[in-house]
Amino acid sequence: MIQALGASNGIAIGKAFVLPNWEWELPEKKIDVADLAKEFERLYEGVRRSKSEIARMKSELDEAVGVQESSIFDAHIAILEDPVFMNEIQGIIQRQYKAAEVAVKEAIDHFVTMFDLLDDEYMKERAVDIKDVGNRLLKHLLGVPEISLPEDTQPFVLVVRELSPSQLIHLRPELVLGIVTMVGSPTSHAAIMARAFGIPLVMGAEGKLEAPIATGDLLIVDGGTGQLFLDPDPSTIEVYAGRRSRHLEQREKLRSLIAVPSLTPDGFTLQLASNISSIKELEASLDCGAEGVGLFRTEFLYMDRNHFPSEEEQFEVYRAAAEKLQGKPLIIRTLDIGGDKQLDYYEMPAEDNPFLGYRAIRFSLDRKDLFKTQLRAILRAAAYGDVQVMYPLIASVEEVREANAVLDQARRELEEQGIPHRSGIPAGIMIEVPAAVAIADLLAEEVAFFSIGTNDLIQFTLAVDRMNEKISHLYEPFHPAVIRMLANVVEAAKRRGIPVSVCGELAGDVLALPIWLGLGIEELSLSAQAILPVKECMLRTRSTDCRSVLEEMLRCRTAADIRRLAENFHASAMSCAGG
Amino acid sequence: MIQALGASNGIAIGKAFVLPNWEWELPEKKIDVADLAKEFERLYEGVRRSKSEIARMKSELDEAVGVQESSIFDAHIAILEDPVFMNEIQGIIQRQYKAAEVAVKEAIDHFVTMFDLLDDEYMKERAVDIKDVGNRLLKHLLGVPEISLPEDTQPFVLVVRELSPSQLIHLRPELVLGIVTMVGSPTSHAAIMARAFGIPLVMGAEGKLEAPIATGDLLIVDGGTGQLFLDPDPSTIEVYAGRRSRHLEQREKLRSLIAVPSLTPDGFTLQLASNISSIKELEASLDCGAEGVGLFRTEFLYMDRNHFPSEEEQFEVYRAAAEKLQGKPLIIRTLDIGGDKQLDYYEMPAEDNPFLGYRAIRFSLDRKDLFKTQLRAILRAAAYGDVQVMYPLIASVEEVREANAVLDQARRELEEQGIPHRSGIPAGIMIEVPAAVAIADLLAEEVAFFSIGTNDLIQFTLAVDRMNEKISHLYEPFHPAVIRMLANVVEAAKRRGIPVSVCGELAGDVLALPIWLGLGIEELSLSAQAILPVKECMLRTRSTDCRSVLEEMLRCRTAADIRRLAENFHASAMSCAGG
Repeated sequence: MIQALGASNGIAIGKAFVLPNWEWELPEKKIDVADLAKEFERLYEGVRRSKSEIARMKSELDEAVGVQESSIFDAHIAILEDPVFMNEIQGIIQRQYKAAEVAVKEAIDHFVTMFDLLDDEYMKERAVDIKDVGNRLLKHLLGVPEISLPEDTQPFVLVVRELSPSQLIHLRPELVLGIVTMVGSPTSHAAIMARAFGIPLVMGAEGKLEAPIATGDLLIVDGGTGQLFLDPDPSTIEVYAGRRSRHLEQREKLRSLIAVPSLTPDGFTLQLASNISSIKELEASLDCGAEGVGLFRTEFLYMDRNHFPSEEEQFEVYRAAAEKLQGKPLIIRTLDIGGDKQLDYYEMPAEDNPFLGYRAIRFSLDRKDLFKTQLRAILRAAAYGDVQVMYPLIASVEEVREANAVLDQARRELEEQGIPHRSGIPAGIMIEVPAAVAIADLLAEEVAFFSIGTNDLIQFTLAVDRMNEKISHLYEPFHPAVIRMLANVVEAAKRRGIPVSVCGELAGDVLALPIWLGLGIEELSLSAQAILPVKECMLRTRSTDCRSVLEEMLRCRTAADIRRLAENFHASAMSCAGG
Repeated sequence: MIQALGASNGIAIGKAFVLPNWEWELPEKKIDVADLAKEFERLYEGVRRSKSEIARMKSELDEAVGVQESSIFDAHIAILEDPVFMNEIQGIIQRQYKAAEVAVKEAIDHFVTMFDLLDDEYMKERAVDIKDVGNRLLKHLLGVPEISLPEDTQPFVLVVRELSPSQLIHLRPELVLGIVTMVGSPTSHAAIMARAFGIPLVMGAEGKLEAPIATGDLLIVDGGTGQLFLDPDPSTIEVYAGRRSRHLEQREKLRSLIAVPSLTPDGFTLQLASNISSIKELEASLDCGAEGVGLFRTEFLYMDRNHFPSEEEQFEVYRAAAEKLQGKPLIIRTLDIGGDKQLDYYEMPAEDNPFLGYRAIRFSLDRKDLFKTQLRAILRAAAYGDVQVMYPLIASVEEVREANAVLDQARRELEEQGIPHRSGIPAGIMIEVPAAVAIADLLAEEVAFFSIGTNDLIQFTLAVDRMNEKISHLYEPFHPAVIRMLANVVEAAKRRGIPVSVCGELAGDVLALPIWLGLGIEELSLSAQAILPVKECMLRTRSTDCRSVLEEMLRCRTAADIRRLAENFHASAMSCAGG
């Protein structure tokens, strides 16, 4: 058994297919001066082909897993449009008379070495992108075919040194039972895609194998624990086959709960809405019984293109979402760009601490033109359903007032122009900055609802970037400070009579359910796959019991104590109460 | 009048001295293959000379302005020891047979262009360092003399395109009345040095001048407002000469307060201690009447060398500080490295959001060997005065307990080894993480005192990196959330009966004085230059009035309202109460 990094949940059992590294023979001849122009033309043609191939992959992927994941390929197109990268290649051709293939290879090596030297996770990820896109360009210049699998290939466990998103697409994902990589991180683009496809993935096996894995070897991959078994004995296979089928069974059982109302045994309710980024995700969440959308992340509408989306383009998407919801609420969050989310077509300032930087409502209030366009589209879509608007990263009363003034201006304009819309839509805010918690009573007087964004709130409250692996163990949702702050927010909202929902990742953690039921929160907004597990748990959890365990939690001095209470409570609810 | 960026406070009136750019003739000849080894030796000799010159400058500067500022030159030495930089130079000599001078020049240009392209403030600052150190190396290879001023030079206003720290040192700072630069940022190394020397500095005049400034032109430089006057008329000169002398007069008047006890007119007191980084700064603060040290930043003891300081090295410094204080309290903060503070000899992980990363107590609890060494040195020094220890960036009860366990282990070791020390020294914490505010009541039961670090606390609470110029206007110390959190911390401390001090920059803002007096805080810890202005203000401020204005502040909904109250209160205290 080898212990590596689990990067995408699930268990796979099957035969290995080891993908060879991309490695080609390059021509050694020098270019004649007279042929320089021709060589440039070859290069441009290669770039054109690469770009159209990437665009094709992107749209296929978009169909398969959605806009958020396919936007990975925007980074690839951006590299082919980057003057620094292209100048480096052209310089090598022009000054050293080397063939375009050789120039591309040298440029890739140059940038990859440079980025690797910088010793920065983000830059290393960019190095993987450059290798991936550079290899694609090389392939077109050399005229070699893409790796492809015969029609009768049986499903396999993919083994590869470093996984690039392109490789995964070209390998017909439906045939891939699971993946093992030698290097790479669970935050890489390729890992994000594996999760989107639901393919179990274990990363970073390098240095842990006694001998290299060969095509045809039998493997067990457990993407949850990061465990990998090579040529497992029959009893291990039996154990994991059992786990695998229980995993699938449990999935079936959950599906039977879709139409069951989400009520606790003592008759309390908690709306289970969904977090979505696209219409496709909305459909997936409705299939899981979502009772509305608590968070429509509009940034992917902005990331999935090469220009700011027009009012019309946004309106069409928001209206489609409103119509699909057939009267269920749709909370649209205004653009939450910046931090770790960038637009290819709009240069954001480089920042030392982007999480504490120019982002979300700060960007919108600085670019009121773009903000108003978005608000107009939202107001127009509100004519087609229960549409509400939500501002992210609010830290002060002034920001709310300023945002509402733009909303009001958008409304007045639409009115004057006689464009159909609904005025007076509810405007709420994300509670995700500690300052917003401290002044929740003041903010409650200015807005229609609160939605607690636990991810950022916990990061700022504890001063911990949870993506930073050196200290991510300090990211502790069950920290007593977090529980107290959640209680403060809910108290302020209840005193003013406005609803509170929770839309961070913690909302989907069944251990946190007694906190929500104990506080009397109105709604959880969850990813599609979290809805049914949370509902299953809610059907077995008495709200009155939650209130007393929450009181105990609020008296705890350490996160370990709170977690222990939550675990014991969950275990007893799931074993005793009956489903 | 030209409006540029004010980067170092004060007014200068004098004649311009325009520093020419460093620009030299480079040899065109190619190196003979047989002479390659000789050329490498020339390069190495140049590097050796540059390094010893930098070391000399550094120690001169250390004498003049202290350890913190002189550590700027460690970055320069690091460049000369950087294999990437040196390989680039050697590669050009070896492969292209160019002279060492030419290779150095090309390498500088290469890296500067590369770093500039990255469009990142940190990288741009590194580009300035590379230019500075590269030019020094060039100078030694070419054998040209340093720019130097004749003995009889009169004091002047330095005008330079881009200021490098080296230039400032070589120009005999005592002759520099003020400085004007065409490009550069107030956060650059050169600006930090100008402030340390107390030289007025205006930056970024490029594109704002109708004609270039010539040596001999009369200039007025206002480093506070960023204003620059070229050939000012006599009435403007009169105005600014008046301001300048009032500035100096006020400085004199403040000096008369050194021995006056820091008491409000109604008999309340607030200890005025100092923030220091070195023995030199301790002396400067005692000269200003500091009543103790509220914050000894030990990181500069770690930054000012090429290895972790030994227990003995630390002990000597801490003991010297304790002895100089003659029984006044000395609060030593344990290593607060990481974030924006790095060690040359210890590679910290590259982080996307270093403020939310691996730093301060997190580093110490991860490297308990280094932490224990520091705590042993502190315990030993405690035999020589009222030494107390303070842990930075505490976010949980568990961290306090873990740190105290190491302190206890250090104490037991010293006891067993029979090494003189004082056991049972008070151990307190910085309150600078929002979580620490939320659980201040729990923390108060575990520690001897609180010291509120307003800089980080405000940054995390508002989710604003105050060094990020795109959003630094959102860094608002008078935000209602901040005032409420300060009040919560003090209430928790008072209930438990432990003292609270404030050691962030806000402590030195006279507008904030009613907050401290209103809350009944025990101590402010200030930079040396802030002690007397705060004392002057305190001598005119009634503590009872502060309590009522603070109550009003706590009812405010916006920062603007709170700021208005603070400004009105300050204005009336300074005008009516009499000194």
